Amino acid sequence: MECERKLYDYIAAIRPADKARLDTAWERLDSLCKPPRSLGGIEETAARLYAIQNGDRISAQKRRIIVMAADNGVCAEGISSAPKSVTLMQTKNIARGITGVAVLARRFGAEVEVVDVGVDTDERLAGVIDAKLMRGTNNIRVSAAMDRETAAKAVLTGIERAARATSDGIDAIGTGEMGIGNTTTSSAVLSVLTGLGVEEVTGRGAGLNDDAFDNKKRVISDAIAFNAPDASDPLDVISKVGGLDIAAMAGVFLGAALNRKAVVIDGFISIVAALTAYRMCPAVKDYMFASHASFEIGFARAAKELGIAAPFMLDMRLGEGSGCPMCFALMDAACAIYNDMATFDEASIDTSYLDTISQGDCFTVEE
Amino acid sequence: MECERKLYDYIAAIRPADKARLDTAWERLDSLCKPPRSLGGIEETAARLYAIQNGDRISAQKRRIIVMAADNGVCAEGISSAPKSVTLMQTKNIARGITGVAVLARRFGAEVEVVDVGVDTDERLAGVIDAKLMRGTNNIRVSAAMDRETAAKAVLTGIERAARATSDGIDAIGTGEMGIGNTTTSSAVLSVLTGLGVEEVTGRGAGLNDDAFDNKKRVISDAIAFNAPDASDPLDVISKVGGLDIAAMAGVFLGAALNRKAVVIDGFISIVAALTAYRMCPAVKDYMFASHASFEIGFARAAKELGIAAPFMLDMRLGEGSGCPMCFALMDAACAIYNDMATFDEASIDTSYLDTISQGDCFTVEE
Repeated sequence: MECERKLYDYIAAIRPADKARLDTAWERLDSLCKPPRSLGGIEETAARLYAIQNGDRISAQKRRIIVMAADNGVCAEGISSAPKSVTLMQTKNIARGITGVAVLARRFGAEVEVVDVGVDTDERLAGVIDAKLMRGTNNIRVSAAMDRETAAKAVLTGIERAARATSDGIDAIGTGEMGIGNTTTSSAVLSVLTGLGVEEVTGRGAGLNDDAFDNKKRVISDAIAFNAPDASDPLDVISKVGGLDIAAMAGVFLGAALNRKAVVIDGFISIVAALTAYRMCPAVKDYMFASHASFEIGFARAAKELGIAAPFMLDMRLGEGSGCPMCFALMDAACAIYNDMATFDEASIDTSYLDTISQGDCFTVEE
Repeated sequence: MECERKLYDYIAAIRPADKARLDTAWERLDSLCKPPRSLGGIEETAARLYAIQNGDRISAQKRRIIVMAADNGVCAEGISSAPKSVTLMQTKNIARGITGVAVLARRFGAEVEVVDVGVDTDERLAGVIDAKLMRGTNNIRVSAAMDRETAAKAVLTGIERAARATSDGIDAIGTGEMGIGNTTTSSAVLSVLTGLGVEEVTGRGAGLNDDAFDNKKRVISDAIAFNAPDASDPLDVISKVGGLDIAAMAGVFLGAALNRKAVVIDGFISIVAALTAYRMCPAVKDYMFASHASFEIGFARAAKELGIAAPFMLDMRLGEGSGCPMCFALMDAACAIYNDMATFDEASIDTSYLDTISQGDCFTVEE
């Protein structure tokens, strides 16, 4: 109970973004030498960053992607094409800097922090933070994934990593994961949290043949039936049918909000963790920034539930946090516009014509 | 006729991308330590860049946005909220480095080249390349925008700027424009090229009230009726109802293809120029990379006609080439993946499990 109490104390301390600063940001954005709101999502990103930061300028220059790695006992049910051993290998490979997220992060000036919250090994992993709580979860088809206190501990681990990023001077935090079998646990959590049927939130992927796909859905349904999680209690849901990675990522979202830092949603597992955090504390949403719309069918359901639209349509489904770097680029664009662009005054443009069009609405002239 | 002949000589020299290199690129991409095709649009961008470049690695590091600036005589019909004088002011402001495209380009390491192909002024513009062909086009409602030879000359200007970018060592070229009234000319060109009704390709924008919007559509219909352009002859279309900016941008697309350089589509005016170039020479499409899906209603029509999907949903409508920097970021991601990521072998991952899933199809495990 101790960790759970600590968790609720943290959650109680989370505040929404500053509405007055949001208004200030839009005032400045509308004074820049362009048709009002004509930079769309770039302006929205700028305004939201301003509302959660403190300065006169906005920044997203220091960024870190936190990758939560853990194994899933449900792999025993044959729900994944890849063998469970890939979790360990890829966890090492991320730390070695050679995987998708690693090379993208390097190119986009982001650090990568790999955290072992439950990889099934006794090995000491070089370059990986050891925060192991279990050597993988239990098989959710026949058991709870973990006990409630362990789930709370995993969430706290994420909160602590976000706090550490903050004390290290990070402006924007990315979320990533590595854990074979974690689309199965994510679909289970999403089905319970939303009440949507397993069919509606579980991806086929042409990778699984008909039999394997049917099995995956059956396993998820069985897991939900066996565990009977309480949909109104997110901690119950992730402890019973979730994973250590999902729990720790939910913590990163909560911790980012607690420290007033922007936090980026990556793919399907990440958005399920985001939704879990949101159910624990709706104010967290003010700090979330979506990147790409994952190819996984459940992503769109979770995004709708969160009321968030992902700006990049790239049919990505790698995970690892690999979508975060492109979102950092969007933040770069937002910072350039907010900090560096001239106002109408500075650009010597008479704005009287703007009175004839409605502020904030669209504008037919693309220039 | 001389410029037109020269133009067709250039067009005849354009070659499609190298199919064999495209296959080689996909072979490498499928050998990287990730579920096949799980990086979606990033991988597609990488493969396409490899197919049009020559080396073993791909590059998009040196990038330049070419901004074609010109006035439109049709502004006399009151089709735009902004006064015509904004074209001159913003052309100067782009060169001064203070507009949307200017600050975004700086942040994303791109040069901006501003080319005056028809701004209505006698002033010498500091930092702007003087390639003026007319002081703005004629009013298309009651005249052809320009004569056919001038249109050919404007296209050649674009081809020359792309050639210059190539000799300057540029890897990727962005397209941009500045010209009040150019959504009107773009809608006119698009309507003729596609056979779609003026209603279907003309943006309302809440900026124009009902009367002004009706007027804009009427002016476009009148212009098409008066000029009766030949839809099968793109040069006829742009000379009669187009603009100097559209013509010169079409030239940039053609010139990029001629020099085997990637060229980025920005917003509505840019994609109409891309479609014009494509109609002159379908192979140009191999060199085109879409950035954002513009808010302007005609953008989606032109994209469909070109068979191109824009990956960024940002509700942008500024123009100037302001969407290009985000596409350069996508190319950065593609270069990182293609050049720097480890293969399955290098990552010590046994790939035998991949035989159980179909290559190139999707994959349920997000990792």
